[in-house]
Amino acid sequence: MYSHKVSERLKGFGITVGDRIRVSGKEGSLMPKPETGDPDCIVIKLDNGYNVGIHYEEGMAIEKLEGRVELEKLAQKEIKFDDRKPVVAILSTGGTIASRVDYRTGGVIPAFSAADLVSAVPELANIANIKGKSVMNVFSENIRPEHYKYMAGAVASEIAEGAAGVVILHGTDTMHYTSSMLSFMLRDLPVPVVILGAQRSSDRGSSDAAMNLICGVNFAAHADYSGVVVCMHGTLDDKFCHIHSGTRVRKMHTSRRDAFKSIDMKPIARVDYEGGKIDFIGEHPKRGHLELSVASGLESKVGLLKVYPGMRLEQVALFREKGYNGLVIEGTGLGHMPMKGDESSDENDRIFNEIRGLAESGCLVVMTSQCIYGNVNMNVYGPGRDLQKAGVISGQGMLPEVAYTKLMWLLGNYEKEKAKAMVSQNVAGEIVERREVAPDFEKGE
Amino acid sequence: MYSHKVSERLKGFGITVGDRIRVSGKEGSLMPKPETGDPDCIVIKLDNGYNVGIHYEEGMAIEKLEGRVELEKLAQKEIKFDDRKPVVAILSTGGTIASRVDYRTGGVIPAFSAADLVSAVPELANIANIKGKSVMNVFSENIRPEHYKYMAGAVASEIAEGAAGVVILHGTDTMHYTSSMLSFMLRDLPVPVVILGAQRSSDRGSSDAAMNLICGVNFAAHADYSGVVVCMHGTLDDKFCHIHSGTRVRKMHTSRRDAFKSIDMKPIARVDYEGGKIDFIGEHPKRGHLELSVASGLESKVGLLKVYPGMRLEQVALFREKGYNGLVIEGTGLGHMPMKGDESSDENDRIFNEIRGLAESGCLVVMTSQCIYGNVNMNVYGPGRDLQKAGVISGQGMLPEVAYTKLMWLLGNYEKEKAKAMVSQNVAGEIVERREVAPDFEKGE
Repeated sequence: MYSHKVSERLKGFGITVGDRIRVSGKEGSLMPKPETGDPDCIVIKLDNGYNVGIHYEEGMAIEKLEGRVELEKLAQKEIKFDDRKPVVAILSTGGTIASRVDYRTGGVIPAFSAADLVSAVPELANIANIKGKSVMNVFSENIRPEHYKYMAGAVASEIAEGAAGVVILHGTDTMHYTSSMLSFMLRDLPVPVVILGAQRSSDRGSSDAAMNLICGVNFAAHADYSGVVVCMHGTLDDKFCHIHSGTRVRKMHTSRRDAFKSIDMKPIARVDYEGGKIDFIGEHPKRGHLELSVASGLESKVGLLKVYPGMRLEQVALFREKGYNGLVIEGTGLGHMPMKGDESSDENDRIFNEIRGLAESGCLVVMTSQCIYGNVNMNVYGPGRDLQKAGVISGQGMLPEVAYTKLMWLLGNYEKEKAKAMVSQNVAGEIVERREVAPDFEKGE
Repeated sequence: MYSHKVSERLKGFGITVGDRIRVSGKEGSLMPKPETGDPDCIVIKLDNGYNVGIHYEEGMAIEKLEGRVELEKLAQKEIKFDDRKPVVAILSTGGTIASRVDYRTGGVIPAFSAADLVSAVPELANIANIKGKSVMNVFSENIRPEHYKYMAGAVASEIAEGAAGVVILHGTDTMHYTSSMLSFMLRDLPVPVVILGAQRSSDRGSSDAAMNLICGVNFAAHADYSGVVVCMHGTLDDKFCHIHSGTRVRKMHTSRRDAFKSIDMKPIARVDYEGGKIDFIGEHPKRGHLELSVASGLESKVGLLKVYPGMRLEQVALFREKGYNGLVIEGTGLGHMPMKGDESSDENDRIFNEIRGLAESGCLVVMTSQCIYGNVNMNVYGPGRDLQKAGVISGQGMLPEVAYTKLMWLLGNYEKEKAKAMVSQNVAGEIVERREVAPDFEKGE
């Protein structure tokens, strides 16, 4: 039941559940108040199928519009187990996809649980038997190594209990860090693990939340695939999602719905929103009967350092001072960094000596490139060779973010020598022979 | 004259200047030895028009091939001043475009002076009266603040002496840092300043050096434009170069010849290799009669920090400890960073407190995004608002690398309050209203 003041106000306008209304700039059908949640919060179903809660403030205008839907269509259906359908576990970790607007600060804060989401997107029940669980509730920029362990453990539990696939709802900011980390941690994965989120929250008409969720659950339930992937909008419109390799994907735009891009490879598959057709784009690993194991050790003393002209010694020196065991350098071009001074300054010489000292101290130092696209190649120029002689390991085609999660994982699970050798070995598709593939960045306007 | 041992060896094979030969895997016409340079270095003109020097080692095979060109075609023409043509000054700063292979280490080291380059690409004399000068010789990853001052000063001298345009030969690794820095330093620029380089050295058949140079000199000599731009291959083939805004360009591939891309805007112009046609793509500033001034102050205590999940306090704390006056954060998504801990760790809380303390200490802290494409927007989510309350300034649509050079420049030329206000003001086209423009990254294969 809505609170007394909300109920009175609705009654005053002659509005009952099912009526089409406009509140605070949003239009949709008035829903019954959910069992949990703020009784002052008016819940309406938007035309995009999403429920949104609007906190009622004294005197707020509520407009009754033309049109009405039947209560049965709106009401939360009791979900019955359908033994012809696979089970998909949806694990909520936080982020925009699990968020609502907080009318106190005007910002967006995470709130809906996975169960709320499932009830808000009834199509999911047609695809699979849905299990919902909230693993944690953090914005993805706040994720720490411990959170990767929670997620890996939660995925393993669901698979042990028979899930045909697992979906992780996640903030988009660091989704690609998580997708690569889970690709390393979840060894011998027999099913798809699909990470997805939303670039626009579900109270906005342009929200990508429902489509990403529907396509992702579809892929988790039905795709003949094993491995960790990201499922997000393939284009600006609502036609299909792309499925990206967990170790070859990156958030490449701050706000676009198709912000996630496969880097130096094509996406793994495309999932149509309407009809749900899944098209694989290339070769891919199939579902299997492997015994999943979680290699959950993580070394937390691993750093990522983007270098730049004019940088100063202290940004490099701290890694030896603080006893780091791994460092990923995000270098320039083919894998370079400030390392040779001249009469105007010898700071670069000091930086290079520090890197050599760091490598000699036993820290694994791996070179990647801030170009994002293309391979590191430290054999082309003298400075690259000098860095290798100083002990810096080429990250080859690994993305900087992926080299970082890989190094944390390697050092957490293997002896240092073994970890060092594995930097250059493909563990989860993170090293691709980067073809001369790159975009016409100017085109899509 | 070549050294005695080289001369004898050539004579032994019956080879004279002009003959087509093969040495150390390279084919071309034997050139006379240039006035300067190693007399043991055999210079041949490759079919791509480029000269390459090969250090002669005792017993090295030299093969005489079919074919021969006339000495006059090969000889360095004495360049006569043509008063119907504009003067273009070419300033060499180092990098691949000014490099030859060092046969001692097998790597590529910078060697050719600008004058050597001009003699190696005779087409330049048809475009303009060329002045060549070597300003410095550093790989671009080794550039320090002092080098930006040399470059700005050298450009100003050439313009004062009447150059219609200036071309800077530069390593590609940090070319976009330099192009933005010079965009800020060179105030009221009346002519084009074109920065260009090569992704492949001139001894390789696939070298992009000659075409970039020819298109860049053409633009500097003839384009009705004022401002600092980058001129590099527009596509993988040798059809045209793109002219990019100095503050909106980024190296987006480690090795492709079309690695440089305009970010969130179209290139300024396209210059055809054959025919030399210059097509502007949009509105642009014209040549003028402004009085150039160099605002050459640079604050060196400015840092750039890419943040990531799991990062540790020490990477943030050093900026306050060492008394930095500016810091650009390369944040996640719309402009976020680790800032809120939970029961598993409060390292994020410490990081946020440190950022607040840094801003309170008077350091200008500016937020950008590691997504590369799209605007920072710190009003969408609560954490963005909290960062702003803590004193972090939105970098809006500025690229991280550009925000870094801008902050060095602002703090070097203005009082802190003025500098702070100018972070959000457009100085040299660095802030664009980023439209929903982004590429289909998968397409170009």
